[in-house]
Amino acid sequence: MLEFKIVKIEVPEDCNVILGMAHFIKTVEDLYEALINAVPNIKFGIGFCESSGPCLVRHEGNDEELRLLAARKAYEVACGHSFIIFLKNAYPINVLDKIKNVPEVCTVYAATANPLEVIIAETEYGRGIVGVIDGLKSKGIEAEEDIKARKDFLRKIGYKLG
Amino acid sequence: MLEFKIVKIEVPEDCNVILGMAHFIKTVEDLYEALINAVPNIKFGIGFCESSGPCLVRHEGNDEELRLLAARKAYEVACGHSFIIFLKNAYPINVLDKIKNVPEVCTVYAATANPLEVIIAETEYGRGIVGVIDGLKSKGIEAEEDIKARKDFLRKIGYKLG
Amino acid sequence: MLEFKIVKIEVPEDCNVILGMAHFIKTVEDLYEALINAVPNIKFGIGFCESSGPCLVRHEGNDEELRLLAARKAYEVACGHSFIIFLKNAYPINVLDKIKNVPEVCTVYAATANPLEVIIAETEYGRGIVGVIDGLKSKGIEAEEDIKARKDFLRKIGYKLG
Amino acid sequence: MLEFKIVKIEVPEDCNVILGMAHFIKTVEDLYEALINAVPNIKFGIGFCESSGPCLVRHEGNDEELRLLAARKAYEVACGHSFIIFLKNAYPINVLDKIKNVPEVCTVYAATANPLEVIIAETEYGRGIVGVIDGLKSKGIEAEEDIKARKDFLRKIGYKLG
Amino acid sequence: MLEFKIVKIEVPEDCNVILGMAHFIKTVEDLYEALINAVPNIKFGIGFCESSGPCLVRHEGNDEELRLLAARKAYEVACGHSFIIFLKNAYPINVLDKIKNVPEVCTVYAATANPLEVIIAETEYGRGIVGVIDGLKSKGIEAEEDIKARKDFLRKIGYKLG
Amino acid sequence: MLEFKIVKIEVPEDCNVILGMAHFIKTVEDLYEALINAVPNIKFGIGFCESSGPCLVRHEGNDEELRLLAARKAYEVACGHSFIIFLKNAYPINVLDKIKNVPEVCTVYAATANPLEVIIAETEYGRGIVGVIDGLKSKGIEAEEDIKARKDFLRKIGYKLG
Repeated sequence: MLEFKIVKIEVPEDCNVILGMAHFIKTVEDLYEALINAVPNIKFGIGFCESSGPCLVRHEGNDEELRLLAARKAYEVACGHSFIIFLKNAYPINVLDKIKNVPEVCTVYAATANPLEVIIAETEYGRGIVGVIDGLKSKGIEAEEDIKARKDFLRKIGYKLG
Repeated sequence: MLEFKIVKIEVPEDCNVILGMAHFIKTVEDLYEALINAVPNIKFGIGFCESSGPCLVRHEGNDEELRLLAARKAYEVACGHSFIIFLKNAYPINVLDKIKNVPEVCTVYAATANPLEVIIAETEYGRGIVGVIDGLKSKGIEAEEDIKARKDFLRKIGYKLG
Repeated sequence: MLEFKIVKIEVPEDCNVILGMAHFIKTVEDLYEALINAVPNIKFGIGFCESSGPCLVRHEGNDEELRLLAARKAYEVACGHSFIIFLKNAYPINVLDKIKNVPEVCTVYAATANPLEVIIAETEYGRGIVGVIDGLKSKGIEAEEDIKARKDFLRKIGYKLG
Repeated sequence: MLEFKIVKIEVPEDCNVILGMAHFIKTVEDLYEALINAVPNIKFGIGFCESSGPCLVRHEGNDEELRLLAARKAYEVACGHSFIIFLKNAYPINVLDKIKNVPEVCTVYAATANPLEVIIAETEYGRGIVGVIDGLKSKGIEAEEDIKARKDFLRKIGYKLG
Repeated sequence: MLEFKIVKIEVPEDCNVILGMAHFIKTVEDLYEALINAVPNIKFGIGFCESSGPCLVRHEGNDEELRLLAARKAYEVACGHSFIIFLKNAYPINVLDKIKNVPEVCTVYAATANPLEVIIAETEYGRGIVGVIDGLKSKGIEAEEDIKARKDFLRKIGYKLG
Repeated sequence: MLEFKIVKIEVPEDCNVILGMAHFIKTVEDLYEALINAVPNIKFGIGFCESSGPCLVRHEGNDEELRLLAARKAYEVACGHSFIIFLKNAYPINVLDKIKNVPEVCTVYAATANPLEVIIAETEYGRGIVGVIDGLKSKGIEAEEDIKARKDFLRKIGYKLG
């Protein structure tokens, strides 16, 4: 048996979601520390799918609402050793390098404020993430004026120097 | 609805392709800088699929042909927040660590000079990469003389010391 | 043609498996060095699927049994540029950062002591990993007493300070 | 001729200073981007001592006062290829990994909110940093109750889990 | 006043020492976790010189003798924000990347099994490390037969492939 | 006895020098591989000061002239566990991240095309690098027109986007 299923993840306003793969129950504490180190006022919740023994969704965070949300969505995903993070007061760009460097983390599937569809493979044995649909499909290729607008935007918000 | 589709990517002669996942429109400039820092005479083009707002393929590069190719193939892939790079005068081994360290990059699916088949999941909502077929399937397990030939080759080209 | 298949990987007792994606035949030597640098008494075997030319499974290791196992399972996976590592006397947490930093490595799909199901896409052209099922699906969300037990366990084994 | 001199650096209230070594005039833009990526509301100034050609102190920042301060203190240090950063709304722990990963950065001498004495070697040819005195010398070894207070403090501010 | 002093560090048999610079009292716990993650049976002690407030030497470890030694030697060094680690059952090569990646760490001065002389600058204000003398000065340049012996040694112990 | 001495390092035309600290005789092979991975046509020589046993300067490279130069200058420096690299067809910015990630490397003192003065502490026991003078001391702070010229230069050579 091999079935593909979709779990939809809506991201709360002013939040972002990060979805990845790790191993070992310590992940949930190490992700907590990676995030708390990243940005002074960051708020977040983490859910991690333990995949042996009691097979519980392990969760941590410094915001009860985001922690509960992360635990619930991780349980809906239910793929062994996957993790999900909801964060606010910070962007993925601020934290993603610290997450990729957590020693238990294998990979990150997506980091986004878009609604996310998680494609999941399910067998008699268990479930695994095979991919994500992160936002809408492309509608065209940027032209000169789009390039100029993009560059101006990044320089206006101070992310790039002019 | 969940359909799987394949986009084929032919790699131009003397080029390599890198396919990955990131987030945020700044990716296209940060990838540009990561690559330009890597190798003095590198030539490359980058395409990145913006996945909200205008949903345009954003593109940069220092070689017009590779830039156009990257934009067109990214548009064919059309998976939100994915990126594609074509490069020459350099190999993935020269640039991959710099790309993995770009703060917006989530993961890299493949880096290769082989033709690539990109497996894509499509729903009503959008599209996402679920995997890649990078070259041919294995034909056997190396024997003693193959091991010797492999080691000799790597030492002859100077990549390993004898 | 696009077919999905499953390769099952049983992990020998006291061992862990790491499954990932790389490029270039030098991967097998670079992974060897990354692992040998990690832990003084580590034992391991590595298999890597060359995906052009002779398309052989390349293998290295410092334990003949694990090397043979890695070569055989890599051949069963047979997905271009993928690699598989079996290790003992060490845990993924000890080596994963060194593996992620190997210049040829694109991504790591899983690192686990669980049995693993590898979901593979196959076309006329070749094969590619699309995901892994790593252990069992989640059975619930941890409650207060589970959190306490988790924290106590990590502190008892000395991985976290109290 | 070899003389040792001291430059004193007072750190403004609620600020931290980071002192390091890099190379190439692009450092000042790359440090700007590393910092702006780190924390959403970070404020900072950077000074970098160009060491050939016009030998000017190059400076960037998103806070005019800190930028001016960094330029002036870099000029007082005047050691070829050294840089100095003053930052607020963020701590060194939030940004230090990003700074160490900037491709031009060689090393970081100190990151602190303490007053700093920079020990400088001067010859007929130029000046170089040989070390820093970062705060006061040790007054004792912590005892059991100090250890408990330290752990409690880190857990109370949420940096570590209990 | 600027005086240079020397602190001598003898390394216990079968041990190595690592000497570096960091910031913030959390360093001592983060170094503990970095080391405990590195090698399954590692034994170590850490001393860290707090440089404001009570200015105590903070210490952690999983071996009481090495912990005590690290605390005492850190107190002898007494340079603000410096740290010292004594480790056994592991080598610096196994742990140094994890230590360099600790978010508070600025730099590492030395990692060695040699006796070490730490050159320290002292003023009325405090003390700072300016350099280390790590073992003996060079006695010559290796000739062909020395190169061969070196390569053979590294391949015999399995650190490099032949 | 504590004496400070200066070793002058002239950098050949079109070359750069990198000076750092590591440990263990394997450094010289690992630096070789880090550099050969970095840039396709890089040419370099490496010298490393072994600091126990025979205390020889160990050397590698893929350019005999630069290898000989590196060996000779390392012998002149003669500080235990230090290394020196001369490179051409590549810039420090292309290779410095790979060097910092070599598992034996502690720190990098300088990376430059400037003449370098290396400040060395010498005792009865051995020698250690305490700092470098990298080029000339600062002559002023850049004004508006200097900032514009700097930005224009970096964008004209393609290192930054306009």
